[in-house]
Amino acid sequence: MAYIKLENEEYLPGIRGLMAFSPDTSKPMNLLADTLLCRPERGTLSKGDRELIGAYTSYLNDCHFCQNVHGAAASCQFEDGGTAFSQVKKNVDQAEIPDKLKALLHIAAAVQKGGKNVSQDQIDLARSLGSTDNDIHDTVLIAAAFCMFNRYVDGLNTWAPQNQEAYDESGERIKRDGYANFDPKKLIKK
Amino acid sequence: MAYIKLENEEYLPGIRGLMAFSPDTSKPMNLLADTLLCRPERGTLSKGDRELIGAYTSYLNDCHFCQNVHGAAASCQFEDGGTAFSQVKKNVDQAEIPDKLKALLHIAAAVQKGGKNVSQDQIDLARSLGSTDNDIHDTVLIAAAFCMFNRYVDGLNTWAPQNQEAYDESGERIKRDGYANFDPKKLIKK
Repeated sequence: MAYIKLENEEYLPGIRGLMAFSPDTSKPMNLLADTLLCRPERGTLSKGDRELIGAYTSYLNDCHFCQNVHGAAASCQFEDGGTAFSQVKKNVDQAEIPDKLKALLHIAAAVQKGGKNVSQDQIDLARSLGSTDNDIHDTVLIAAAFCMFNRYVDGLNTWAPQNQEAYDESGERIKRDGYANFDPKKLIKK
Repeated sequence: MAYIKLENEEYLPGIRGLMAFSPDTSKPMNLLADTLLCRPERGTLSKGDRELIGAYTSYLNDCHFCQNVHGAAASCQFEDGGTAFSQVKKNVDQAEIPDKLKALLHIAAAVQKGGKNVSQDQIDLARSLGSTDNDIHDTVLIAAAFCMFNRYVDGLNTWAPQNQEAYDESGERIKRDGYANFDPKKLIKK
């Protein structure tokens, strides 16, 4: 059970119950997620690449809910049945993804530990593999934002579904609708 | 120098240069900060209490820019010349602040380490000292949000002023204007 009283908690796992509890903070948080993860015009990173960076950061933060929601979103965007995220969790360098994305995932991992862990060498490598300023900016901010989302979800002790189907549904919904107009109350099916 | 090319970097330290670089992500980030830190109607925490939680989280994350900006904002709200933040940095339990706020600062410190570090005992203590669900929610989300802001500022290697006057100006401006309509470009004085 969450540390605070959430209405319809059993129908709204993870961040959803919190967003229903506090709609005025959920609005800018969803707008930030939508801008970073869904806008087509940001740099050279695909929506799948950006979801993968968020899912990987959530995995490093050991946040069950977020890593599964965004792992499923990455899987839907890539249409790869979750292969990229599975491989990245095992070993970024051996995953069958472009070297540029590997370099950005290493930057995300440094951000997850703390901002000062990002090194000039990591930036130089990402740039030498084709990353733009926008890609580097967005990678750092996506990883930083998931350090917020993950702490929000786990710091208030919300519950997370254990069945994969729940996350697959989320992945499809995110691919279809994005985040900007997300309303957790629409997901309550009693 | 920052890891990405920022216009007017010398006039826009810390998060300001990043917000000028990426206005579409800065808008929801400022709206989130304004909602959490400046809205009068949220729980029993004063604006000074909420700035102190953000400043303390930034101190724990060793983010020079954010801890000084929000330390100055707390000082302006408390009108205490920075005493509360100085004392909290030395030892939360010995600071001359209410026990309820000490309990919430311990929750913020747990969130800074990672969401799963928050314990039921910490929540029970905060509640026994008068914290409401809104206070607990906002404490966790403020600490989580500063884990994002701090990583954004340091992960992209922005610079931070070393003179206290720069931060005192920020504290006064935040007290006067809040964050929602913040425009970094208005601060450029060439």
